[in-house]
Amino acid sequence: MTSLAVAIQGELGSNSELAVREYYDGATVDLTIVPCRTFDELFDAVHEGRAHTAMAPLENSLAGSIHDVWRLLVERHLPVCGELRLRIAHCLIGLPGSDLTQIRRVRSHPQALAQCQQFLQGLPDVEIEAVYDTAGAVQMLIAEGDRQEAAIASAQAAADHEMEVIARDLCEGENFTRFLALGKAPEGVGQTRMPAGELKTTLVLQMGSTASGLSSVLGELARQDLVVLKVETHKHAGLPWSYDVYLEFSGDVDSTSPRAAIDRVGSLVEAVHVIGSYPSGADVEPRLHQR
Amino acid sequence: MTSLAVAIQGELGSNSELAVREYYDGATVDLTIVPCRTFDELFDAVHEGRAHTAMAPLENSLAGSIHDVWRLLVERHLPVCGELRLRIAHCLIGLPGSDLTQIRRVRSHPQALAQCQQFLQGLPDVEIEAVYDTAGAVQMLIAEGDRQEAAIASAQAAADHEMEVIARDLCEGENFTRFLALGKAPEGVGQTRMPAGELKTTLVLQMGSTASGLSSVLGELARQDLVVLKVETHKHAGLPWSYDVYLEFSGDVDSTSPRAAIDRVGSLVEAVHVIGSYPSGADVEPRLHQR
Repeated sequence: MTSLAVAIQGELGSNSELAVREYYDGATVDLTIVPCRTFDELFDAVHEGRAHTAMAPLENSLAGSIHDVWRLLVERHLPVCGELRLRIAHCLIGLPGSDLTQIRRVRSHPQALAQCQQFLQGLPDVEIEAVYDTAGAVQMLIAEGDRQEAAIASAQAAADHEMEVIARDLCEGENFTRFLALGKAPEGVGQTRMPAGELKTTLVLQMGSTASGLSSVLGELARQDLVVLKVETHKHAGLPWSYDVYLEFSGDVDSTSPRAAIDRVGSLVEAVHVIGSYPSGADVEPRLHQR
Repeated sequence: MTSLAVAIQGELGSNSELAVREYYDGATVDLTIVPCRTFDELFDAVHEGRAHTAMAPLENSLAGSIHDVWRLLVERHLPVCGELRLRIAHCLIGLPGSDLTQIRRVRSHPQALAQCQQFLQGLPDVEIEAVYDTAGAVQMLIAEGDRQEAAIASAQAAADHEMEVIARDLCEGENFTRFLALGKAPEGVGQTRMPAGELKTTLVLQMGSTASGLSSVLGELARQDLVVLKVETHKHAGLPWSYDVYLEFSGDVDSTSPRAAIDRVGSLVEAVHVIGSYPSGADVEPRLHQR
Protein backbone atom coordinates (compact mmCIF):
# COMPACT_ATOMS: atom_id res chain seq x y z
CA MET A 1 0.00 0.00 0.00
CA THR A 2 1.23 3.53 -0.75
CA SER A 3 2.16 5.34 2.41
CA LEU A 4 1.06 8.89 3.01
CA ALA A 5 2.27 11.19 5.81
CA VAL A 6 -0.19 14.00 6.58
CA ALA A 7 0.67 16.93 8.86
CA ILE A 8 -1.99 18.36 11.21
CA GLN A 9 -1.93 21.16 13.75
CA GLY A 10 -2.69 19.46 17.04
CA GLU A 11 -2.47 15.96 18.44
CA LEU A 12 -3.98 12.63 17.45
CA GLY A 13 -7.70 12.74 18.18
CA SER A 14 -8.03 16.40 17.19
CA ASN A 15 -10.63 17.51 14.66
CA SER A 16 -7.81 17.95 12.16
CA GLU A 17 -6.99 14.24 12.45
CA LEU A 18 -10.67 13.37 11.96
CA ALA A 19 -10.67 15.53 8.84
CA VAL A 20 -7.66 13.60 7.48
CA ARG A 21 -9.27 10.20 8.21
CA GLU A 22 -12.54 11.24 6.54
CA TYR A 23 -10.83 12.87 3.57
CA TYR A 24 -8.75 9.77 2.73
CA ASP A 25 -11.46 7.31 3.80
CA GLY A 26 -11.67 4.50 1.23
CA ALA A 27 -8.33 5.32 -0.37
CA THR A 28 -5.93 2.34 -0.30
CA VAL A 29 -3.29 4.19 1.57
CA ASP A 30 -1.24 3.67 4.71
CA LEU A 31 -1.81 6.93 6.65
CA THR A 32 0.70 8.40 9.08
CA ILE A 33 -0.33 11.52 11.00
CA VAL A 34 2.40 14.09 11.69
CA PRO A 35 1.26 16.25 14.63
CA CYS A 36 2.52 19.86 14.63
CA ARG A 37 2.27 22.36 17.42
CA THR A 38 1.62 25.46 15.30
CA PHE A 39 0.39 26.29 11.81
CA ASP A 40 3.89 27.50 10.93
CA GLU A 41 5.23 24.04 11.80
CA LEU A 42 2.47 22.48 9.69
CA PHE A 43 3.72 24.33 6.60
CA ASP A 44 7.33 23.54 7.57
CA ALA A 45 6.52 19.82 7.79
CA VAL A 46 5.46 19.72 4.14
CA HIS A 47 8.14 22.09 2.83
CA GLU A 48 10.85 20.13 4.63
CA GLY A 49 9.55 16.74 3.46
CA ARG A 50 8.44 15.36 6.85
CA ALA A 51 4.91 15.07 5.46
CA HIS A 52 3.55 14.66 1.93
CA THR A 53 0.46 16.75 2.58
CA ALA A 54 -1.19 18.78 5.33
CA MET A 55 -4.77 19.29 6.47
CA ALA A 56 -5.37 22.91 7.50
CA PRO A 57 -8.57 24.42 8.96
CA LEU A 58 -9.51 27.52 6.97
CA GLU A 59 -12.73 28.69 8.61
CA ASN A 60 -15.38 27.70 11.12
CA SER A 61 -19.08 28.41 10.72
CA LEU A 62 -19.35 29.99 14.18
CA ALA A 63 -15.93 31.54 14.76
CA GLY A 64 -15.05 32.64 11.22
CA SER A 65 -11.79 32.55 9.31
CA ILE A 66 -8.54 31.27 10.77
CA HIS A 67 -6.43 34.21 9.69
CA ASP A 68 -3.09 32.57 10.53
CA VAL A 69 -3.80 29.86 7.97
CA TRP A 70 -4.84 32.41 5.30
CA ARG A 71 -1.62 34.33 5.96
CA LEU A 72 0.50 31.19 5.61
CA LEU A 73 -1.31 30.21 2.39
CA VAL A 74 -0.12 33.54 0.96
CA GLU A 75 3.38 33.52 2.45
CA ARG A 76 4.33 29.83 2.16
CA HIS A 77 2.45 28.63 -0.88
CA LEU A 78 1.39 24.97 -1.03
CA PRO A 79 -0.82 23.42 -3.74
CA VAL A 80 -4.44 22.81 -2.69
CA CYS A 81 -5.76 19.32 -3.55
CA GLY A 82 -9.24 19.58 -2.08
CA GLU A 83 -11.44 20.52 0.85
CA LEU A 84 -14.04 19.15 3.24
CA ARG A 85 -16.36 20.56 5.85
CA LEU A 86 -16.29 18.52 9.03
CA ARG A 87 -19.06 18.77 11.61
CA ILE A 88 -17.52 19.65 14.97
CA ALA A 89 -19.09 17.67 17.82
CA HIS A 90 -17.60 18.81 21.13
CA CYS A 91 -17.69 16.47 24.15
CA LEU A 92 -16.85 17.11 27.77
CA ILE A 93 -14.32 14.43 28.67
CA GLY A 94 -13.16 13.31 32.13
CA LEU A 95 -11.29 10.43 33.73
CA PRO A 96 -13.18 7.09 33.70
CA GLY A 97 -16.03 7.21 36.21
CA SER A 98 -15.92 10.97 36.73
CA ASP A 99 -19.15 12.98 36.55
CA LEU A 100 -20.22 16.54 35.92
CA THR A 101 -20.65 17.57 39.55
CA GLN A 102 -16.98 16.84 40.31
CA ILE A 103 -15.49 18.97 37.55
CA ARG A 104 -13.67 22.14 38.68
CA ARG A 105 -11.49 22.89 35.65
CA VAL A 106 -12.11 22.57 31.90
CA ARG A 107 -9.31 22.82 29.34
CA SER A 108 -9.54 23.11 25.57
CA HIS A 109 -8.57 25.12 22.51
CA PRO A 110 -9.82 28.74 22.80
CA GLN A 111 -12.20 28.31 19.82
CA ALA A 112 -13.76 25.19 21.34
CA LEU A 113 -14.16 27.00 24.67
CA ALA A 114 -15.83 29.93 22.90
CA GLN A 115 -18.20 27.59 21.06
CA CYS A 116 -19.25 25.88 24.30
CA GLN A 117 -19.60 29.13 26.22
CA GLN A 118 -23.28 28.63 26.98
CA PHE A 119 -22.69 25.13 28.37
CA LEU A 120 -19.68 26.33 30.38
CA GLN A 121 -21.59 29.26 31.86
CA GLY A 122 -24.06 26.77 33.28
CA LEU A 123 -21.32 25.05 35.31
CA PRO A 124 -20.83 26.58 38.78
CA ASP A 125 -17.31 27.18 40.17
CA VAL A 126 -15.50 25.87 37.12
CA GLU A 127 -12.22 27.36 36.00
CA ILE A 128 -11.64 27.58 32.21
CA GLU A 129 -8.16 27.18 30.74
CA ALA A 130 -7.15 27.68 27.12
CA VAL A 131 -4.56 25.28 25.68
CA TYR A 132 -3.18 24.84 22.15
CA ASP A 133 -5.28 21.85 21.07
CA THR A 134 -8.46 19.94 22.02
CA ALA A 135 -6.82 16.51 21.98
CA GLY A 136 -3.82 17.96 23.82
CA ALA A 137 -6.25 18.94 26.60
CA VAL A 138 -7.22 15.24 26.94
CA GLN A 139 -3.55 14.28 27.23
CA MET A 140 -3.10 16.82 30.04
CA LEU A 141 -6.11 15.33 31.78
CA ILE A 142 -4.53 11.86 31.62
CA ALA A 143 -1.13 13.16 32.75
CA GLU A 144 -2.63 14.88 35.80
CA GLY A 145 -5.08 12.09 36.69
CA ASP A 146 -7.34 14.48 38.59
CA ARG A 147 -11.10 13.77 38.68
CA GLN A 148 -11.83 17.48 39.05
CA GLU A 149 -10.43 18.12 35.58
CA ALA A 150 -12.07 17.79 32.19
CA ALA A 151 -11.31 18.57 28.56
CA ILE A 152 -13.48 19.59 25.63
CA ALA A 153 -12.55 17.48 22.62
CA SER A 154 -13.92 14.99 20.08
CA ALA A 155 -15.47 11.62 20.97
CA GLN A 156 -12.47 10.16 19.12
CA ALA A 157 -10.05 11.70 21.64
CA ALA A 158 -12.07 10.11 24.47
CA ALA A 159 -12.22 6.70 22.73
CA ASP A 160 -8.47 6.72 21.97
CA HIS A 161 -7.61 6.94 25.65
CA GLU A 162 -10.66 5.16 27.11
CA MET A 163 -11.77 8.32 28.85
CA GLU A 164 -15.31 9.14 29.99
CA VAL A 165 -17.59 11.21 27.78
CA ILE A 166 -19.43 13.22 30.45
CA ALA A 167 -21.57 15.27 28.02
CA ARG A 168 -22.02 15.42 24.23
CA ASP A 169 -23.02 18.01 21.61
CA LEU A 170 -22.01 20.92 23.81
CA CYS A 171 -22.31 23.46 21.06
CA GLU A 172 -25.56 24.98 19.85
CA GLY A 173 -25.89 25.97 16.22
CA GLU A 174 -24.41 24.59 13.03
CA ASN A 175 -20.75 24.00 13.79
CA PHE A 176 -18.63 23.06 10.78
CA THR A 177 -14.94 23.56 10.14
CA ARG A 178 -13.78 23.78 6.57
CA PHE A 179 -10.39 22.17 5.93
CA LEU A 180 -8.06 22.42 2.95
CA ALA A 181 -5.91 19.46 1.93
CA LEU A 182 -2.54 20.99 1.01
CA GLY A 183 0.53 19.66 -0.78
CA LYS A 184 0.99 16.95 -3.38
CA ALA A 185 0.04 13.37 -2.52
CA PRO A 186 2.30 10.69 -4.07
CA GLU A 187 1.15 9.23 -7.40
CA GLY A 188 -1.73 6.80 -6.95
CA VAL A 189 -3.18 8.32 -3.76
CA GLY A 190 -6.63 9.58 -4.39
CA GLN A 191 -9.33 10.39 -1.92
CA THR A 192 -12.55 8.56 -2.41
CA ARG A 193 -15.11 9.82 0.07
CA MET A 194 -15.12 13.33 -1.35
CA PRO A 195 -17.19 13.68 -4.50
CA ALA A 196 -15.22 15.19 -7.38
CA GLY A 197 -17.27 18.39 -7.17
CA GLU A 198 -17.09 21.46 -9.39
CA LEU A 199 -13.77 23.25 -9.33
CA LYS A 200 -13.50 26.37 -7.23
CA THR A 201 -10.74 28.95 -6.93
CA THR A 202 -9.43 30.66 -3.80
CA LEU A 203 -7.61 34.00 -3.97
CA VAL A 204 -6.26 36.51 -1.49
CA LEU A 205 -6.26 40.11 -2.71
CA GLN A 206 -4.19 42.83 -1.13
CA MET A 207 -6.09 46.11 -1.35
CA GLY A 208 -5.12 49.70 -0.50
CA SER A 209 -8.64 50.11 0.78
CA THR A 210 -11.54 47.73 0.34
CA ALA A 211 -13.99 50.29 -0.89
CA SER A 212 -14.01 51.06 -4.60
CA GLY A 213 -11.41 48.34 -5.20
CA LEU A 214 -13.65 45.58 -3.92
CA SER A 215 -16.75 46.74 -5.80
CA SER A 216 -14.76 46.87 -9.05
CA VAL A 217 -13.37 43.39 -8.39
CA LEU A 218 -16.82 41.90 -7.81
CA GLY A 219 -18.14 43.74 -10.86
CA GLU A 220 -15.35 42.19 -12.93
CA LEU A 221 -16.21 38.67 -11.72
CA ALA A 222 -19.89 39.28 -12.52
CA ARG A 223 -18.95 40.40 -16.05
CA GLN A 224 -17.16 37.05 -16.52
CA ASP A 225 -20.24 35.18 -15.17
CA LEU A 226 -18.26 33.76 -12.24
CA VAL A 227 -20.27 32.88 -9.14
CA VAL A 228 -18.74 34.38 -6.01
CA LEU A 229 -18.72 31.78 -3.21
CA LYS A 230 -16.96 33.78 -0.51
CA VAL A 231 -15.81 37.35 -0.01
CA GLU A 232 -14.40 38.52 3.27
CA THR A 233 -12.22 41.44 4.25
CA HIS A 234 -9.50 41.21 6.85
CA LYS A 235 -7.55 44.17 8.21
CA HIS A 236 -3.88 43.98 7.33
CA ALA A 237 -2.72 45.04 10.80
CA GLY A 238 -0.08 47.76 10.85
CA LEU A 239 -0.53 48.85 7.21
CA PRO A 240 -2.52 52.12 7.01
CA TRP A 241 -6.09 51.60 5.71
CA SER A 242 -5.09 48.37 4.02
CA TYR A 243 -7.14 45.19 3.88
CA ASP A 244 -6.78 41.69 2.54
CA VAL A 245 -9.77 40.13 0.80
CA TYR A 246 -10.41 36.40 0.89
CA LEU A 247 -12.21 35.67 -2.36
CA GLU A 248 -13.56 32.42 -3.76
CA PHE A 249 -15.48 31.74 -6.94
CA SER A 250 -16.63 28.74 -8.91
CA GLY A 251 -14.33 27.75 -11.75
CA ASP A 252 -10.78 26.76 -12.49
CA VAL A 253 -7.97 29.30 -12.54
CA ASP A 254 -6.63 27.74 -15.76
CA SER A 255 -9.81 28.04 -17.79
CA THR A 256 -10.52 31.11 -19.89
CA SER A 257 -12.95 33.33 -18.03
CA PRO A 258 -11.41 32.97 -14.52
CA ARG A 259 -7.98 33.61 -16.05
CA ALA A 260 -9.29 36.75 -17.74
CA ALA A 261 -11.02 37.88 -14.54
CA ILE A 262 -7.87 37.39 -12.46
CA ASP A 263 -5.81 39.38 -14.97
CA ARG A 264 -8.30 42.26 -14.82
CA VAL A 265 -8.52 42.03 -11.01
CA GLY A 266 -4.72 42.29 -10.84
CA SER A 267 -4.92 45.78 -12.30
CA LEU A 268 -7.47 46.87 -9.66
CA VAL A 269 -5.65 45.79 -6.50
CA GLU A 270 -2.13 45.89 -5.08
CA ALA A 271 -1.52 42.14 -5.34
CA VAL A 272 -3.40 38.94 -6.23
CA HIS A 273 -2.33 35.70 -4.57
CA VAL A 274 -3.81 32.61 -6.24
CA ILE A 275 -4.09 30.04 -3.45
CA GLY A 276 -5.39 27.32 -5.75
CA SER A 277 -8.15 25.69 -7.79
CA TYR A 278 -9.58 22.43 -6.42
CA PRO A 279 -12.76 20.35 -6.34
CA SER A 280 -15.49 21.56 -3.96
CA GLY A 281 -15.88 19.28 -0.95
CA ALA A 282 -18.88 18.02 0.97
CA ASP A 283 -20.21 18.19 4.53
CA VAL A 284 -18.93 15.26 6.54
CA GLU A 285 -20.02 13.78 9.89
CA PRO A 286 -17.12 12.58 12.02
CA ARG A 287 -17.05 8.85 12.85
CA LEU A 288 -14.97 6.90 15.34
CA HIS A 289 -11.86 5.42 13.74
CA GLN A 290 -9.84 2.40 14.82
CA ARG A 291 -6.11 2.85 14.88
CA MET B 1 -22.66 80.77 25.70
CA THR B 2 -24.55 77.57 24.94
CA SER B 3 -23.27 74.70 27.02
CA LEU B 4 -22.59 71.31 25.50
CA ALA B 5 -21.83 68.08 27.38
CA VAL B 6 -19.97 65.52 25.24
CA ALA B 7 -19.41 61.92 26.35
CA ILE B 8 -16.12 60.17 25.53
CA GLN B 9 -14.79 56.70 26.28
CA GLY B 10 -11.71 57.32 28.39
CA GLU B 11 -10.37 60.09 30.55
CA LEU B 12 -9.53 63.74 29.95
CA GLY B 13 -6.41 63.87 27.79
CA SER B 14 -7.43 60.83 25.72
CA ASN B 15 -7.52 60.98 21.94
CA SER B 16 -11.31 61.02 22.19
CA GLU B 17 -11.15 64.28 24.14
CA LEU B 18 -8.78 65.74 21.56
CA ALA B 19 -11.27 64.75 18.86
CA VAL B 20 -14.05 66.60 20.73
CA ARG B 21 -11.92 69.75 21.16
CA GLU B 22 -10.94 69.77 17.48
CA TYR B 23 -14.45 68.98 16.25
CA TYR B 24 -16.03 71.88 18.16
CA ASP B 25 -13.04 74.20 17.74
CA GLY B 26 -14.26 77.69 16.86
CA ALA B 27 -17.86 77.01 17.92
CA THR B 28 -19.04 79.46 20.57
CA VAL B 29 -19.88 76.77 23.04
CA ASP B 30 -19.03 75.94 26.62
CA LEU B 31 -17.75 72.35 26.43
CA THR B 32 -18.03 69.83 29.26
CA ILE B 33 -16.42 66.43 28.75
CA VAL B 34 -18.24 63.43 30.28
CA PRO B 35 -15.69 60.60 30.66
CA CYS B 36 -17.11 57.05 30.37
CA ARG B 37 -15.32 53.84 31.16
CA THR B 38 -16.81 51.71 28.36
CA PHE B 39 -18.51 52.24 25.00
CA ASP B 40 -21.76 50.93 26.51
CA GLU B 41 -21.57 53.70 29.11
CA LEU B 42 -20.90 56.22 26.35
CA PHE B 43 -24.19 55.35 24.66
CA ASP B 44 -25.95 55.28 28.05
CA ALA B 45 -24.69 58.80 28.83
CA VAL B 46 -26.47 60.24 25.79
CA HIS B 47 -29.60 58.07 26.07
CA GLU B 48 -29.96 58.98 29.75
CA GLY B 49 -29.36 62.70 29.17
CA ARG B 50 -26.04 63.02 31.02
CA ALA B 51 -24.48 64.22 27.76
CA HIS B 52 -25.93 65.95 24.68
CA THR B 53 -23.62 64.18 22.27
CA ALA B 54 -20.84 61.60 22.21
CA MET B 55 -17.60 61.24 20.26
CA ALA B 56 -17.01 57.60 19.33
CA PRO B 57 -13.97 56.13 17.53
CA LEU B 58 -15.12 54.00 14.60
CA GLU B 59 -11.89 52.82 13.02
CA ASN B 60 -8.16 53.28 13.08
CA SER B 61 -5.93 53.25 10.00
CA LEU B 62 -3.55 50.67 11.49
CA ALA B 63 -5.77 48.57 13.76
CA GLY B 64 -9.01 48.58 11.77
CA SER B 65 -12.61 48.84 12.87
CA ILE B 66 -13.67 49.13 16.48
CA HIS B 67 -16.34 46.44 16.33
CA ASP B 68 -17.85 47.26 19.73
CA VAL B 69 -18.77 50.72 18.48
CA TRP B 70 -20.26 49.36 15.23
CA ARG B 71 -22.32 46.91 17.29
CA LEU B 72 -23.62 49.68 19.56
CA LEU B 73 -24.47 51.88 16.56
CA VAL B 74 -26.77 49.06 15.42
CA GLU B 75 -28.18 48.13 18.82
CA ARG B 76 -28.50 51.55 20.47
CA HIS B 77 -29.13 53.91 17.63
CA LEU B 78 -27.99 57.54 17.96
CA PRO B 79 -28.12 60.15 15.19
CA VAL B 80 -24.75 60.88 13.53
CA CYS B 81 -23.93 64.61 13.19
CA GLY B 82 -20.50 64.34 11.58
CA GLU B 83 -17.05 62.81 11.61
CA LEU B 84 -13.36 63.68 11.76
CA ARG B 85 -10.10 61.81 11.35
CA LEU B 86 -7.64 62.66 14.09
CA ARG B 87 -3.94 61.96 13.71
CA ILE B 88 -2.79 59.82 16.64
CA ALA B 89 0.59 60.90 18.01
CA HIS B 90 1.69 58.54 20.77
CA CYS B 91 4.21 59.73 23.38
CA LEU B 92 6.05 57.81 26.06
CA ILE B 93 5.30 59.68 29.28
CA GLY B 94 7.05 59.39 32.63
CA LEU B 95 7.30 61.31 35.92
CA PRO B 96 9.10 64.67 35.65
CA GLY B 97 12.83 64.11 35.23
CA SER B 98 12.56 60.41 34.40
CA ASP B 99 14.40 59.04 31.37
CA LEU B 100 14.18 56.06 29.05
CA THR B 101 16.87 53.95 30.74
CA GLN B 102 14.92 53.88 34.03
CA ILE B 103 11.63 52.61 32.60
CA ARG B 104 10.69 49.03 33.55
CA ARG B 105 6.93 49.06 32.92
CA VAL B 106 4.79 50.70 30.22
CA ARG B 107 1.00 50.94 30.47
CA SER B 108 -1.50 51.95 27.82
CA HIS B 109 -4.61 50.98 25.90
CA PRO B 110 -4.08 47.66 24.04
CA GLN B 111 -4.43 49.38 20.62
CA ALA B 112 -1.81 51.99 21.51
CA LEU B 113 0.53 49.24 22.75
CA ALA B 114 0.03 47.32 19.50
CA GLN B 115 0.76 50.44 17.43
CA CYS B 116 4.00 51.08 19.32
CA GLN B 117 5.12 47.46 19.24
CA GLN B 118 8.30 48.18 17.31
CA PHE B 119 9.35 50.89 19.75
CA LEU B 120 8.48 48.69 22.74
CA GLN B 121 10.42 45.72 21.37
CA GLY B 122 13.51 47.91 21.36
CA LEU B 123 13.27 48.46 25.13
CA PRO B 124 15.10 45.80 27.18
CA ASP B 125 13.50 44.32 30.33
CA VAL B 126 10.30 46.31 30.07
CA GLU B 127 6.99 44.85 31.17
CA ILE B 128 3.94 45.83 29.11
CA GLU B 129 0.53 46.24 30.74
CA ALA B 130 -2.77 46.87 28.98
CA VAL B 131 -5.25 49.23 30.66
CA TYR B 132 -8.59 50.66 29.52
CA ASP B 133 -7.43 54.08 28.35
CA THR B 134 -4.27 55.97 27.34
CA ALA B 135 -4.94 58.96 29.60
CA GLY B 136 -5.97 56.59 32.39
CA ALA B 137 -2.47 55.07 32.14
CA VAL B 138 -1.01 58.54 32.87
CA GLN B 139 -3.24 58.84 35.94
CA MET B 140 -1.98 55.48 37.23
CA LEU B 141 1.58 56.69 36.70
CA ILE B 142 0.87 59.77 38.85
CA ALA B 143 -0.91 57.72 41.52
CA GLU B 144 2.00 55.30 41.85
CA GLY B 145 4.76 57.93 41.60
CA ASP B 146 7.33 55.38 40.45
CA ARG B 147 10.11 56.52 38.09
CA GLN B 148 10.34 53.03 36.61
CA GLU B 149 6.85 53.38 35.17
CA ALA B 150 5.66 55.04 32.00
CA ALA B 151 2.49 55.44 29.96
CA ILE B 152 1.83 55.76 26.25
CA ALA B 153 -0.61 58.60 25.66
CA SER B 154 -1.06 61.95 23.91
CA ALA B 155 1.15 65.00 24.49
CA GLN B 156 -2.04 66.60 25.88
CA ALA B 157 -2.20 64.01 28.67
CA ALA B 158 1.43 64.81 29.59
CA ALA B 159 0.82 68.57 29.49
CA ASP B 160 -2.33 68.31 31.61
CA HIS B 161 -0.41 66.77 34.49
CA GLU B 162 3.02 68.36 33.88
CA MET B 163 4.54 64.96 33.17
CA GLU B 164 7.70 64.30 31.15
CA VAL B 165 7.45 63.40 27.47
CA ILE B 166 10.30 60.88 27.23
CA ALA B 167 9.81 60.05 23.54
CA ARG B 168 7.47 61.24 20.75
CA ASP B 169 5.97 59.84 17.54
CA LEU B 170 6.34 56.25 18.70
CA CYS B 171 4.25 54.85 15.91
CA GLU B 172 5.46 54.28 12.37
CA GLY B 173 3.03 54.63 9.51
CA GLU B 174 -0.02 56.80 8.98
CA ASN B 175 -1.98 56.58 12.22
CA PHE B 176 -5.43 58.17 12.09
CA THR B 177 -8.53 57.39 14.10
CA ARG B 178 -11.88 58.21 12.55
CA PHE B 179 -14.46 59.47 15.04
CA LEU B 180 -18.22 59.90 14.70
CA ALA B 181 -20.02 62.71 16.51
CA LEU B 182 -23.24 61.14 17.80
CA GLY B 183 -26.46 62.54 19.23
CA LYS B 184 -28.17 65.88 18.76
CA ALA B 185 -26.41 69.08 19.80
CA PRO B 186 -28.68 71.79 21.27
CA GLU B 187 -29.97 74.40 18.80
CA GLY B 188 -27.28 76.92 17.87
CA VAL B 189 -24.27 74.65 18.41
CA GLY B 190 -22.45 74.15 15.16
CA GLN B 191 -18.97 72.94 14.59
CA THR B 192 -16.81 75.24 12.59
CA ARG B 193 -13.46 73.60 12.00
CA MET B 194 -14.96 70.75 9.94
CA PRO B 195 -15.76 71.76 6.38
CA ALA B 196 -19.36 71.02 5.45
CA GLY B 197 -18.25 68.21 3.13
CA GLU B 198 -20.39 66.07 0.85
CA LEU B 199 -22.92 63.89 2.62
CA LYS B 200 -22.08 60.25 3.14
CA THR B 201 -24.18 57.38 4.45
CA THR B 202 -23.17 54.57 6.80
CA LEU B 203 -25.03 51.24 6.89
CA VAL B 204 -24.59 47.91 8.61
CA LEU B 205 -25.96 44.93 6.66
CA GLN B 206 -26.68 41.58 8.24
CA MET B 207 -25.96 38.84 5.72
CA GLY B 208 -26.51 35.09 5.75
CA SER B 209 -23.18 34.77 3.97
CA THR B 210 -21.15 37.54 2.43
CA ALA B 211 -20.66 35.88 -0.91
CA SER B 212 -23.36 36.36 -3.51
CA GLY B 213 -25.25 38.75 -1.21
CA LEU B 214 -22.39 41.21 -1.05
CA SER B 215 -21.70 41.17 -4.78
CA SER B 216 -25.38 41.82 -5.50
CA VAL B 217 -25.42 44.69 -2.99
CA LEU B 218 -22.38 46.36 -4.55
CA GLY B 219 -23.85 45.80 -8.01
CA GLU B 220 -27.03 47.55 -6.87
CA LEU B 221 -25.09 50.56 -5.57
CA ALA B 222 -23.15 50.75 -8.84
CA ARG B 223 -26.43 50.72 -10.78
CA GLN B 224 -27.54 53.78 -8.76
CA ASP B 225 -24.18 55.50 -9.46
CA LEU B 226 -23.32 55.60 -5.77
CA VAL B 227 -19.62 55.71 -4.92
CA VAL B 228 -18.71 53.08 -2.32
CA LEU B 229 -16.40 54.59 0.31
CA LYS B 230 -16.03 51.59 2.62
CA VAL B 231 -17.00 47.94 2.59
CA GLU B 232 -15.84 45.59 5.27
CA THR B 233 -17.10 42.23 6.48
CA HIS B 234 -17.14 41.24 10.13
CA LYS B 235 -17.97 37.76 11.40
CA HIS B 236 -21.13 37.69 13.47
CA ALA B 237 -19.65 35.41 16.14
CA GLY B 238 -21.82 32.46 17.14
CA LEU B 239 -24.22 32.69 14.17
CA PRO B 240 -23.41 30.00 11.58
CA TRP B 241 -21.75 31.40 8.40
CA SER B 242 -23.19 34.82 9.09
CA TYR B 243 -21.43 38.14 8.61
CA ASP B 244 -22.13 41.81 9.12
CA VAL B 245 -21.05 44.24 6.43
CA TYR B 246 -20.01 47.80 7.25
CA LEU B 247 -20.92 49.79 4.15
CA GLU B 248 -20.49 53.47 3.36
CA PHE B 249 -21.27 55.40 0.22
CA SER B 250 -21.42 59.01 -0.89
CA GLY B 251 -24.87 60.55 -0.76
CA ASP B 252 -27.72 61.23 1.57
CA VAL B 253 -30.09 58.50 2.68
CA ASP B 254 -33.05 60.85 2.08
CA SER B 255 -32.28 61.64 -1.53
CA THR B 256 -33.70 59.58 -4.36
CA SER B 257 -31.02 57.18 -5.59
CA PRO B 258 -29.59 56.17 -2.15
CA ARG B 259 -33.18 55.61 -0.94
CA ALA B 260 -33.88 53.39 -3.95
CA ALA B 261 -30.59 51.52 -3.49
CA ILE B 262 -31.28 50.88 0.20
CA ASP B 263 -34.75 49.56 -0.60
CA ARG B 264 -33.30 47.14 -3.16
CA VAL B 265 -30.46 46.15 -0.82
CA GLY B 266 -33.05 45.34 1.85
CA SER B 267 -34.41 42.56 -0.33
CA LEU B 268 -30.92 41.03 -0.79
CA VAL B 269 -29.84 40.77 2.86
CA GLU B 270 -31.32 39.75 6.18
CA ALA B 271 -31.40 43.25 7.66
CA VAL B 272 -30.26 46.78 6.80
CA HIS B 273 -29.39 49.14 9.64
CA VAL B 274 -29.07 52.77 8.54
CA ILE B 275 -26.56 54.30 10.95
CA GLY B 276 -26.88 57.79 9.45
CA SER B 277 -26.12 60.35 6.75
CA TYR B 278 -23.71 63.14 7.67
CA PRO B 279 -21.12 65.51 6.17
CA SER B 280 -17.71 63.97 5.38
CA GLY B 281 -15.01 65.14 7.78
CA ALA B 282 -11.38 66.13 7.29
CA ASP B 283 -7.99 64.95 8.58
CA VAL B 284 -7.05 66.88 11.71
CA GLU B 285 -3.74 67.31 13.55
CA PRO B 286 -4.10 67.31 17.34
CA ARG B 287 -3.03 70.51 19.12
CA LEU B 288 -2.43 71.23 22.78
CA HIS B 289 -5.51 72.72 24.42
CA GLN B 290 -5.73 74.94 27.49
CA ARG B 291 -8.39 74.01 29.99
